[in-house]
Amino acid sequence: MRKIILLAVGLLLAATGWAQVKVVYHLNEGIPQASRAIGNIRNHLAADPAAKIVVVTHGQGIDFLLDGATNPANQPFAGSIGELAGRGVEFRVCNNTLVTRNIAKDRVVMEASVVPSGVAEVARLQAKEGFVYLRP
Amino acid sequence: MRKIILLAVGLLLAATGWAQVKVVYHLNEGIPQASRAIGNIRNHLAADPAAKIVVVTHGQGIDFLLDGATNPANQPFAGSIGELAGRGVEFRVCNNTLVTRNIAKDRVVMEASVVPSGVAEVARLQAKEGFVYLRP
Amino acid sequence: MRKIILLAVGLLLAATGWAQVKVVYHLNEGIPQASRAIGNIRNHLAADPAAKIVVVTHGQGIDFLLDGATNPANQPFAGSIGELAGRGVEFRVCNNTLVTRNIAKDRVVMEASVVPSGVAEVARLQAKEGFVYLRP
Repeated sequence: MRKIILLAVGLLLAATGWAQVKVVYHLNEGIPQASRAIGNIRNHLAADPAAKIVVVTHGQGIDFLLDGATNPANQPFAGSIGELAGRGVEFRVCNNTLVTRNIAKDRVVMEASVVPSGVAEVARLQAKEGFVYLRP
Repeated sequence: MRKIILLAVGLLLAATGWAQVKVVYHLNEGIPQASRAIGNIRNHLAADPAAKIVVVTHGQGIDFLLDGATNPANQPFAGSIGELAGRGVEFRVCNNTLVTRNIAKDRVVMEASVVPSGVAEVARLQAKEGFVYLRP
Repeated sequence: MRKIILLAVGLLLAATGWAQVKVVYHLNEGIPQASRAIGNIRNHLAADPAAKIVVVTHGQGIDFLLDGATNPANQPFAGSIGELAGRGVEFRVCNNTLVTRNIAKDRVVMEASVVPSGVAEVARLQAKEGFVYLRP
């Protein structure tokens, strides 16, 4: 009975809008998409500062998370990544992509962590951790 | 106890398929994507007339919702927008985009409303209002 | 009371991570996206062999599911489709697309089934069958 009540309370909290919004940003295209995503995430946090944002990358989507990456205006991504990480945004890189593209793990920026599979991570966050999806 | 029963009834209704399907269409690419989306939404409503569809736009995605916008075949979007709005489809435009691109609010068609942030709205609809996601 | 307990048990199973992850892969772009998706799905199943994956296609997204389709390296898709179908992956093709593009149903490979509307199917799987979304 106690568990049922706890569940009911959790559902009521969610239903009444008290729960934190958790969003997975799914990136697999490359630098232009990453550049858009940085702006999107800044706007997202400005509108909802409590939102939890996890950026999951694979394929060409990982490129902006490699050391020395620059945006289409030739500016380093490092500053934006550090700033967003400082605000709680997490960045995850697909290990399958690193292997397939023969990229050494130590080229991934220190703010990002490596996960076994980017696509499985995108699905897991939604199915198991209550994240919603957004593809910028 | 009454709240638990209400929750259970709600869950059972959802589980047995009585609940309305609510879908957020996420548009951020531009006219060709918007043109595809119009056709997608027509087909969606033909297959599921009770579906609730909200179109959230930002970046280049807002272009078809500006006065005088035309599709790749040079036909005005106005007719399709009015028709879909008449069937309950809602259109939302990101204010951050209007500011960044220096577009006056009065250029947004009257069927669309302006929201503070397109990405935050896409997440909010999913996390707080039970919408599912679709990127056409 | 029994139904409430059953619901609570279901929710607890889901919350404690025992539930199967169900994912809809949404494809509407064409051969390059389909080619990426095949690799994504292989990696997904390697990371989570119990995942249930349904690939829903419409627009140009159906092309790799037509008889004789080949990937950008000019290799037939047939082998990959058969292999993934054998591992439980399901493929669905939008009938509206077949009609609009004037493609006969018998050109669809036997591993795929035809659904009335691709977009309505993407929404239905999420809203009614507990699938999460991924656009490769």
